[in-house]
Amino acid sequence: MGKFEINILGCGSALPTLRHYPSTQILNIRDNLFMIDCGEGAQMQFRRMRLKFTRLEHIFLSHLHGDHCFGLIGMISTFSLMGRTGELVVHAHPQAESVFRPQLDFFCRDLPFTVRFEPVLPGRSEVIYEDRSIKVTSLPMIHRVPCSGFLFEEKPAMRHLLGDMVKFYDIPVYRRAEIKAGADYVTPDGETIPNARLTTAAAPPLRYAYCSDTAYNEALLPAIEGVDMLYHEATFGDDAEELARLTCHSTARQAAIIARKASVKQLLLGHFSARYEDEQPLLAQAGEEFSPCMLAKEGLKIVLGK
Amino acid sequence: MGKFEINILGCGSALPTLRHYPSTQILNIRDNLFMIDCGEGAQMQFRRMRLKFTRLEHIFLSHLHGDHCFGLIGMISTFSLMGRTGELVVHAHPQAESVFRPQLDFFCRDLPFTVRFEPVLPGRSEVIYEDRSIKVTSLPMIHRVPCSGFLFEEKPAMRHLLGDMVKFYDIPVYRRAEIKAGADYVTPDGETIPNARLTTAAAPPLRYAYCSDTAYNEALLPAIEGVDMLYHEATFGDDAEELARLTCHSTARQAAIIARKASVKQLLLGHFSARYEDEQPLLAQAGEEFSPCMLAKEGLKIVLGK
Repeated sequence: MGKFEINILGCGSALPTLRHYPSTQILNIRDNLFMIDCGEGAQMQFRRMRLKFTRLEHIFLSHLHGDHCFGLIGMISTFSLMGRTGELVVHAHPQAESVFRPQLDFFCRDLPFTVRFEPVLPGRSEVIYEDRSIKVTSLPMIHRVPCSGFLFEEKPAMRHLLGDMVKFYDIPVYRRAEIKAGADYVTPDGETIPNARLTTAAAPPLRYAYCSDTAYNEALLPAIEGVDMLYHEATFGDDAEELARLTCHSTARQAAIIARKASVKQLLLGHFSARYEDEQPLLAQAGEEFSPCMLAKEGLKIVLGK
Repeated sequence: MGKFEINILGCGSALPTLRHYPSTQILNIRDNLFMIDCGEGAQMQFRRMRLKFTRLEHIFLSHLHGDHCFGLIGMISTFSLMGRTGELVVHAHPQAESVFRPQLDFFCRDLPFTVRFEPVLPGRSEVIYEDRSIKVTSLPMIHRVPCSGFLFEEKPAMRHLLGDMVKFYDIPVYRRAEIKAGADYVTPDGETIPNARLTTAAAPPLRYAYCSDTAYNEALLPAIEGVDMLYHEATFGDDAEELARLTCHSTARQAAIIARKASVKQLLLGHFSARYEDEQPLLAQAGEEFSPCMLAKEGLKIVLGK
C-alpha cells in the first residue's frame, strides 16, 4: 500500500476562533493531494503543513457554507501568481460554478490554468472521482443546505508474487500480471499451481470517510461500514444536543454512536463549535460510546494503515 | 486628543507567507474602529489583536486586488453569525458592490444588518468620510488597477479653557464654547480679554496617511505633507527596482524618499513581497533616505501622538 495521510488544516466551524481554522483537510494518497473543503486561511495552513501546492489537482467541497469554501478564491489566486499550469478540478454542488466563476473572472483574470467544476449531486451516493489507485464516492448528509460527505477508497492492490516461487516454476514475465490479479499458474507440463502458493495477499485497501456537516443519520451506516477512519462532525457536546438538532449538526456522542454502529476502526472528531474552549469533554462523551476516538487539531497528520 | 492607534493585522502582499498575512490595518480612533483593506484571514487577526468587532462601522478598501479584500466576505459572515445589527459601510471602488453583493446574497442571506457600499472614485482626492472628530480623504495611487490611498485626519480640537481664568472672570457657561473655539471674551464692563490669556492650545490634530499599492508618485506630496505617520508600501528592495516599476509598486527606498520630500514625522513600511525572508535590508535602504522609519509587522500596535 502506498501513502495514505490525513492532514488537518482546520477543524473549527462557522465562527473562526484563535484555536481553530475553519474546515479544511488534505489527503495525501501516494503523493497526490486531495483537498476536502477549503475554509478561509486554507492556503496559509497548506503552506504551514509543508504540503506541495503543485500536487493538488482535486478539491472536494461538502457544501456551500462559507466556513467550508471561503478559502477557495484566495488559494486559486495564489496558484495563479505561482504560475501553476495544471487543471484544477473542484467537485462541488452544481451551484458552485455560478457562485465562484464570477469571482474567478474578476479576481483571477488570465488564469494560466483551467478551473473545472464537477457537479456533485446532493442526496445521492455515487462515484464522483476515480483514478488508477482510488475512487471517491459522495455520501448524502443531512444539513440545512444540500451537503455531501466523501468516501475515499483505495482500489484493491495486486497480490504480491513470491520471488522464490517465480524462480522455482520459472514463471514467464507475461503471466505474472494475471497471477498477481489472483489467477492460478498452469505450468508447461499442465500442472496447476494454486494462486495461494504463488502469492501473498496485499494489504487491504484503505478507506476514509468524511462526514460533515450532518445531523445524526443512520442511513450512512452501510456506506461507511468498517472504514479505517471515520471523520465525523462533532459540532456540539451533550450540553447542546437540542441545538445540534435544530442546526442539523451532531454531538460528539452521536458521532461516536455512528462510528460504533458502522464498526469503523477509528473515529476522528472535528468541526467544533466556537463555544468550546476545550474539546476534551466532547472526546470524553464520544469515548463513552466508542473507541478509539480522537480530536482533530490544526497541524495533525494521521497516517492510515500503519 | 483622544486615542489614535494603528493596528497592523497584515502587511504582506499578494502571496501570503508564513510570516505575513495580506494587507489589513485597523485604526482605533477614540474607540471607533476603521479598517483599511481586508485580506484573507483579517477576521482571525482582528480577534487575535483583541479589538472589538462591534466597534467597526467603516471599512476602506484601497483597490480590488484579492490580497486587499478576500477577507471581507468571511468577516461579514462572522458578524452576521454574531448577531451584529449596526450598518457596515464599505468605502471602495464603485465596482465593489457588483463584486461583493452577489456573494453576500448567496452566503449571507438574512443578514441582520445592512452592508452599504460607498463609492470611492479613483483618480481624485476628496473627502469620503467625515464625523465629529475625523475626516478621511481619498488619495490617488498609481497602480495596475484603480487604487486609492487614504488620509485620516483628526479635526482640530477645541482650545483648553483655563479653570482659573473662568473663575477669575466669572465667565458664564454659555460663552465658554466660543472661547474654546478661539474667541476673545468681553466682560460685562466692556473689557476685552484676549483668547490667549484664557486658553491653551489643544494638541495639534493627528494625521495618518495609508499609501498602498502605488508606484513612486511625487504628486502625493502636497496631500501628505507633514503627516504624523505615513504608511507607504515597500513591496521591494533595491534589488528589484525594475520589478517595482513594472508592477506599479515601490521600493523601500522610494517610500523613504517620498517620506523625506513630504517631511512626514514617521514612516511605516509594509506590503512586503514574499521574496524577502527578512525585511531588515529594506529597512536599511529606507533608512539611508529617511528616519524615523520602521517595518510593519503582524500584531504591531502604534499609538500616534505620544
